[in-house]
Amino acid sequence: MDIATSPLAKPFPAMEPVAGVTLRVARAHYKTWDRCDLTYAELAEGTAVAGVFTRNVCCSSEVELGREQVKLGHARALVVNAGNSNAFTGYRGRDAVEQIMAQVAAHLGCQPAEVFVSSTGVIGVPLPKDKAEAGVAAALTAEPCSFEAAAETIGTTDTFAKGASATAMIGETKVTINGIIKGSGMIAPDMATMLGYIFTDAAVEPAFLQACLSAASEPTFNCITVDSDTSTSDTVLAFATGKAGNAPLAHGDDAGADAFAAALHDVCRQLAHLVVRDGEGASKFIAVTVEGAVSDESARKVGLAIANSPLVKTAIAGGDANWGRVVMAVGKAGEPADRDKLGIAFGGVWAAKDGLPLADYDETPVAEHLKGDEVDLTVDLGLGEGTATVWTCDLTHGYIAINADYRS
Amino acid sequence: MDIATSPLAKPFPAMEPVAGVTLRVARAHYKTWDRCDLTYAELAEGTAVAGVFTRNVCCSSEVELGREQVKLGHARALVVNAGNSNAFTGYRGRDAVEQIMAQVAAHLGCQPAEVFVSSTGVIGVPLPKDKAEAGVAAALTAEPCSFEAAAETIGTTDTFAKGASATAMIGETKVTINGIIKGSGMIAPDMATMLGYIFTDAAVEPAFLQACLSAASEPTFNCITVDSDTSTSDTVLAFATGKAGNAPLAHGDDAGADAFAAALHDVCRQLAHLVVRDGEGASKFIAVTVEGAVSDESARKVGLAIANSPLVKTAIAGGDANWGRVVMAVGKAGEPADRDKLGIAFGGVWAAKDGLPLADYDETPVAEHLKGDEVDLTVDLGLGEGTATVWTCDLTHGYIAINADYRS
Repeated sequence: MDIATSPLAKPFPAMEPVAGVTLRVARAHYKTWDRCDLTYAELAEGTAVAGVFTRNVCCSSEVELGREQVKLGHARALVVNAGNSNAFTGYRGRDAVEQIMAQVAAHLGCQPAEVFVSSTGVIGVPLPKDKAEAGVAAALTAEPCSFEAAAETIGTTDTFAKGASATAMIGETKVTINGIIKGSGMIAPDMATMLGYIFTDAAVEPAFLQACLSAASEPTFNCITVDSDTSTSDTVLAFATGKAGNAPLAHGDDAGADAFAAALHDVCRQLAHLVVRDGEGASKFIAVTVEGAVSDESARKVGLAIANSPLVKTAIAGGDANWGRVVMAVGKAGEPADRDKLGIAFGGVWAAKDGLPLADYDETPVAEHLKGDEVDLTVDLGLGEGTATVWTCDLTHGYIAINADYRS
Repeated sequence: MDIATSPLAKPFPAMEPVAGVTLRVARAHYKTWDRCDLTYAELAEGTAVAGVFTRNVCCSSEVELGREQVKLGHARALVVNAGNSNAFTGYRGRDAVEQIMAQVAAHLGCQPAEVFVSSTGVIGVPLPKDKAEAGVAAALTAEPCSFEAAAETIGTTDTFAKGASATAMIGETKVTINGIIKGSGMIAPDMATMLGYIFTDAAVEPAFLQACLSAASEPTFNCITVDSDTSTSDTVLAFATGKAGNAPLAHGDDAGADAFAAALHDVCRQLAHLVVRDGEGASKFIAVTVEGAVSDESARKVGLAIANSPLVKTAIAGGDANWGRVVMAVGKAGEPADRDKLGIAFGGVWAAKDGLPLADYDETPVAEHLKGDEVDLTVDLGLGEGTATVWTCDLTHGYIAINADYRS
């Protein structure tokens, strides 16, 4: 099945190289795709690493190993396999990952644990070790490539290459943060898993890099949903080569730490939004903001209940400002809510306040807002100061077509 | 939009009358429908009542009142409005319900609290009091009708009338249990606009009737899901007129109590299955059985995570025995699971055991099973003795058509 480029796609941004990062792609022929499917990133000695991983308890060997590797704090290389997730493959799957780690480590003269591996694609088929070996060998000697080429190569059902970039000043030193990501269902473990990689030339201690990445992930990657399904392989890794030469960041009160954390957050937010924009079948990018919750975490949960509701998502797909379905979704979230304090707005126009539809509610501007491809939905719970925004896309015939009609 | 009858529909069963129950229907004209939309059931003096209600915190006034009324234990009448849920309508919605209760109570010479009211349909529009008054007046004097006519009248987007019947012997006395139900979307455990009414001529003390209904609801109504969305109005009420003349049941060890509880459970299960069979867009009826969980409740939660997964539901719609998506859903359930102990079977054929695809797995019989309109999926967690079965339907273009293309 040919899947058309998402109508919400964004062009790949211009990106500066990141000193200490060399990207290469090759063909391992995991699928019959007529394109590269193996991405290799070589990282300068001393590169710090941080990571966040799926909470799915049936995770892949790559995720199990990655969680341990991140604790060591240093990385020399990244290999990403596209077309086979290697999940639910037991010891044979783990063997294949360890083979890749050993092969790259021998080439670089580093520890295997400094080689990070991710895989995305079909579940339950062990990564073929012969194809992996040949693919890695080809990648190790391939010509360096751009971030855009790498972003294309890590994709599976993605309909466009996704990248984001930001800079920050650390003292007198300008540092660059480039990120690439793949994913189009949140995230389908057949041909879609969210894998994100962030590269910076900043010098950052591993523990502080982890703190920044974890903090940035909560309001970004953990606030998006396409279909409420969580992959067994989701991974976001951040690599800091230190080649910019700044005084290494180790604490939140170091000079430039705030700027770095903000830039990293910015890249994470952009990447997260791009995944939603490539959501399977998406025709509208939806921001759900919940205010007046008892806490930020409660606001996030209510926001996700709304963003995951098939009835809300289909209503928005149909251009229907169906706030009754929003009320339903708020009520089922399992979080504190009071029906008689609820307010609901579309595109900044309040349809209901204090638990009642507004008498003078004019649906005309709301209908106009819902015709666009970016929809804002705000819910005021009227209980406290907690707030959160989550992002999702609408649920359309396209989602069914991709996931029911397409045989993986 | 005309919605075709579900391919999973069952014919309405033959039903004996229930002594002490008189049904009538009328037109309140809540919508422009060319059919009756108000159902009235008159119940003999001394009728016991029990109920289970939505856990959605944004519930309707009908549910708020019903919860209190059930505590009194007795009922004389039921009024069901179809076409307007009266939910999220504040004090005006409550006024309309209290008006109906007073009107019927005056007619019967009973307490308003003995008159139960349910409403289903659009959220956020107060039930029009003038239409309700005229509709109730017409119903009070209408000719008695059949259970099938009542089942048709309580429906909204339902594509077929749903009923179930069972009998039980209490000592020498045969008692009848008839149930009707409506619901086809916004269906998830804790009730959706699912409205169900069960009538029996058995003599049952209210507290024991409640105990039986609550026990029967857990593995039936609370084990079905169409779209993971939970309505603000879900209600199941059971009425026992006592006209069969058996020695009243008050305890689980009374003669005939087991038979009665089993028959009630049977009716609840049949009714719950019928709701799934009318699931919006459904083309397949899916039973998900989880075995080997640490507890029955854990098994139920894992089952619901599978049954609510859009990726599992679309795969089955497409006839794809995609056990990778099942692994994903198990892992995201938030319950104990061990990837390397997992077994998955479709139609009794094991595709994976102990966390690995079976080497000799033959997909042919599985593909054949998935072509049918009843699909069995079994997951063995391999951890303990907990087990549960939940029921759902597949996710098809029909669901999107009904909910995105149809303006409610």
